[in-house]
Amino acid sequence: MKYQAPLRDMRFVLHEVFDVSGHCARLNNGLDRETIDGVLEEAARFAAEVVAPLNRNSDEQGCQLIDGHVTTPQGFRDAYRQYVDNGWASMTGPLEFAGQGFPQLISASFHEMLMAASLSFRIYSGLTEGAVLALHRHGSEVLKQAYLEKMVSGEWSGTMCLTEPQAGTDLALLRTRAQPQADGSYQVSGSKIFISGGEQDLTANIVHLVLARLPDAPAGVKGISLFLVPKFIAAADGTPGPRNSLSCGALEHKMGIKGASTCVMNFDGAQGWLIGEANQGLACMFTMMNDARFQVGLQGLGIAEAAFQGGLAYARERLQSRAISGPVAPDKSADPIIVHPDVRRMLLTQKTLSEGCRLLAAYTALQLDLEHGDPQPEARQKASRRAALLIPIVKAFFTDVGQEVASLGVQLYGGHGYIREWGMEQLMRDSRITQLYEGTNGIQALDLLRRKVLGDGATELGALIDELAVHVDAAGSQAALRQMVEAMQQRLAEWRELGTEVVEACRRDVQEIGAMSVDFLAYSAYVLVGGLWLQAAVRAQAALDAGTDEPGFYRAKLQAADFYWRRVLPRASGHRESLRGGAHCLMAMDEADFAF
Amino acid sequence: MKYQAPLRDMRFVLHEVFDVSGHCARLNNGLDRETIDGVLEEAARFAAEVVAPLNRNSDEQGCQLIDGHVTTPQGFRDAYRQYVDNGWASMTGPLEFAGQGFPQLISASFHEMLMAASLSFRIYSGLTEGAVLALHRHGSEVLKQAYLEKMVSGEWSGTMCLTEPQAGTDLALLRTRAQPQADGSYQVSGSKIFISGGEQDLTANIVHLVLARLPDAPAGVKGISLFLVPKFIAAADGTPGPRNSLSCGALEHKMGIKGASTCVMNFDGAQGWLIGEANQGLACMFTMMNDARFQVGLQGLGIAEAAFQGGLAYARERLQSRAISGPVAPDKSADPIIVHPDVRRMLLTQKTLSEGCRLLAAYTALQLDLEHGDPQPEARQKASRRAALLIPIVKAFFTDVGQEVASLGVQLYGGHGYIREWGMEQLMRDSRITQLYEGTNGIQALDLLRRKVLGDGATELGALIDELAVHVDAAGSQAALRQMVEAMQQRLAEWRELGTEVVEACRRDVQEIGAMSVDFLAYSAYVLVGGLWLQAAVRAQAALDAGTDEPGFYRAKLQAADFYWRRVLPRASGHRESLRGGAHCLMAMDEADFAF
Repeated sequence: MKYQAPLRDMRFVLHEVFDVSGHCARLNNGLDRETIDGVLEEAARFAAEVVAPLNRNSDEQGCQLIDGHVTTPQGFRDAYRQYVDNGWASMTGPLEFAGQGFPQLISASFHEMLMAASLSFRIYSGLTEGAVLALHRHGSEVLKQAYLEKMVSGEWSGTMCLTEPQAGTDLALLRTRAQPQADGSYQVSGSKIFISGGEQDLTANIVHLVLARLPDAPAGVKGISLFLVPKFIAAADGTPGPRNSLSCGALEHKMGIKGASTCVMNFDGAQGWLIGEANQGLACMFTMMNDARFQVGLQGLGIAEAAFQGGLAYARERLQSRAISGPVAPDKSADPIIVHPDVRRMLLTQKTLSEGCRLLAAYTALQLDLEHGDPQPEARQKASRRAALLIPIVKAFFTDVGQEVASLGVQLYGGHGYIREWGMEQLMRDSRITQLYEGTNGIQALDLLRRKVLGDGATELGALIDELAVHVDAAGSQAALRQMVEAMQQRLAEWRELGTEVVEACRRDVQEIGAMSVDFLAYSAYVLVGGLWLQAAVRAQAALDAGTDEPGFYRAKLQAADFYWRRVLPRASGHRESLRGGAHCLMAMDEADFAF
Repeated sequence: MKYQAPLRDMRFVLHEVFDVSGHCARLNNGLDRETIDGVLEEAARFAAEVVAPLNRNSDEQGCQLIDGHVTTPQGFRDAYRQYVDNGWASMTGPLEFAGQGFPQLISASFHEMLMAASLSFRIYSGLTEGAVLALHRHGSEVLKQAYLEKMVSGEWSGTMCLTEPQAGTDLALLRTRAQPQADGSYQVSGSKIFISGGEQDLTANIVHLVLARLPDAPAGVKGISLFLVPKFIAAADGTPGPRNSLSCGALEHKMGIKGASTCVMNFDGAQGWLIGEANQGLACMFTMMNDARFQVGLQGLGIAEAAFQGGLAYARERLQSRAISGPVAPDKSADPIIVHPDVRRMLLTQKTLSEGCRLLAAYTALQLDLEHGDPQPEARQKASRRAALLIPIVKAFFTDVGQEVASLGVQLYGGHGYIREWGMEQLMRDSRITQLYEGTNGIQALDLLRRKVLGDGATELGALIDELAVHVDAAGSQAALRQMVEAMQQRLAEWRELGTEVVEACRRDVQEIGAMSVDFLAYSAYVLVGGLWLQAAVRAQAALDAGTDEPGFYRAKLQAADFYWRRVLPRASGHRESLRGGAHCLMAMDEADFAF
């Protein structure tokens, strides 16, 4: 399959729905429409021509660990060199360390392209960006001067070393130790698992951010500190200096993302430096969690778009059976399968979920940008609350969507979908990790319901619904959208009531939090995306009313919005009804009685 | 992961819900309770001790094609030899060819075990059983005498050669040719793909059933004939004779079922014999289709049960975080994750879908047995209509369930679910094929709605609902089940109305058939399984009322039924609402406008 970035849709979302130029003006970053479009076009070329062609082989070849060295799949080194040389690595990096400081509203489009082109390839640089964020916000000036510029440029990479065999979701169980040394550094010892890019052959140095415990640390999560532990300790001249005592002990054998090295990392008294305050490691990680989870959400979106493109190309080419209403291609042996309603149901589910998530990704990116860059402190706080509410939805919903849309891609190909050469089953395997890492989707749902909704008595949720309702009500004046407007008005009222109901239920019985969380997140996501689809429909209708020269594009937007609320949004009803089934039927069964 | 057949649940389903002893008496096959239980216990041992241990390695090792010969994974040959020697292969075979003639109500349990233990291993023998059926019903006496006894015993295997590169769902596009010879045989030439077990090292001979066209055949599906084309032509003494001119050209590289050889088969003027009438090949295949689709449904069920067992074992062992209501295992570093409501939601979804499908599998097997073996012709016809209605539901729903439950298994393991060694991701990969082969699940849904529901104006559907309603109404007298009874009464009435609505909509607009079919099948499946869960709950309540010495088992049945109708059945609402979205929003978009 061949990936092409959906540039037209990205421009629609950025310019026509979210006014990215106005956004950049507010952030005062000097980016104008021409620059933005030019960057996206170059980005699309890089993703399609340099990265995407590596993806299929990277799955077959995987990574190899030989004598402690990891070899990445053929072509990754060269593509990564171009990625660094052409400045893609530094797109979002801080200006003071030679980054380009692009807002997320723009970079999210580029990152979606990368993930669609090759999730394995993107993982190396994505982790580095996360490490840059943590180091930039919490690191000492000395550490930043020694490491940050090389990491921002992509010459050096970064990792996140959190998980240990006994400590996944529950970081309180971490055992890795850090022993203070006379020179102010620490000796870090312990074993970490699932470390993406823990060892690779793309960069001259790898900077590990490691969670570990100080000798006198309190038990649990309040005794965890964050350390910078580089593979090579930076020399004064900015080159990699002495080799540190850490190593890759093994590569995991995985379902997918086989081009990304997933390492067991052993730290044997490796020299490290504290980042932030002692015992505040988790807080340091939390400040970058929104960004990291947003990135994983984009992975789901990227996979979904790739699977939609694959499915659509096949549905247009593959000739099987005749349309029920009579032959459409009588000169051929059969009609292309896109004539069949159920094939269209699958394609439109792919399309409306992908494009709907793209709208929500942009809306969320905009909040992240304002949170960090709005000149007004109040606007920053408002955006921060909004982003906090949206992030678990984006992470969990987009990755669930990625898996579903990839699976639909397989289904569209029939038996060929199961064959590796076609690339569709790889998308399913690659995307499956996104529902697990950076906090499982169950953990996202708990975060949404416990911290973000119960945490403020559904105040921020109400504010989001208010904002969506303003758009929906305003759209009511357009006769062509009347049915969708009415459906969305009902859903928003229902969402508001459900929020109140859920808060009350959880206050009565704490078990309801975990019992309702996953269905509540899914319900919220479908309605939220419905609200954004309506905003897109309003823009499309306006363009058609104004006499656009792209009537097909805008008509398809209206048709897609129509499909979404009629055929996808109804899933919300099932989730609402299911969560109302409550906690008792989950908690009643004795653990011993689950099987006999 | 370690598989153990769910013998207690199987006995519950067979004896307590469906009275298998009475069923065998009606079929007059001489099987009593003791024999049945003994067979199932031996079967469980064979599946757990001989087959299951091969599954993980078979995925890593796969099959190899060297000089035209296929090597199956290590251990398959020996296990297959035991399978034949111990008589498992001949369990369902016809008595007159030394088969044991077991009814499907019993053999389905064994086949579920095999599929749970290793889908790859089971595929070889499953295809042989299908070929036996076709040959037994349609083959000439000469062919049957030459091939059938060896195939029934499992010494020789069978395949189904249908698909060609240009002809998958649409068999009208078949190109393989058969040229009549002077001796009454045919020369078969053409290339077939996706042939499971097309070449392997398990059996001394492989009997291919091949769809091909005669020189004078009409175009389309009315010009397809079925041929028996053996790898070795049977000699008069029953041994494999001369090697036929056919060969395995390649093995497919697949997402899963890597232990099953999936072959490109080239027939180069191979000698074959007509099965059944000329140009009636599709009809010959159709008579065995119910059985073959039922078997694929069982694959979904087997995978689901295996994934539930894997998930449950891990949820009991894995220690992460504390229960929200306070520590449950204060002596340990954390509580087992089965204390968390969302983990229980996943486990109970796995459990109630698996056990619910087991009920429906038994109900369907019973119909298949009566269709072929009831002494009364009317009862055979009634069962035949019922089975025809149920089969597409079983095939599509069970395999969707298999994929979902396997994915929940991965999710329960967190990041470890993505690692091959744990076995959960293999279940996802293995099961994904079941939604595609033997007619994609979209095709099943079309079959259900077009042939089985519209075909008789929803008469048989109404009869099924009537039968379920009798059980539900009878259960109304049990106070403990009141809520579930009311919920099911509402659902059955809703299903009946929806059936009428769908029939009317499809008569108005033929595009509604394909537009509504998948949601209608899913809706029907959730309600049907709900009806069977209520019957199970009635039995469980009766056992508790009678003072059983297994109160935990029966209490868990009631609790599981309660979970099903409160938390799983609500999905039906989403499907009902979605199908009501209709066809227009699917068909409106120009093919050119799907992407820009």
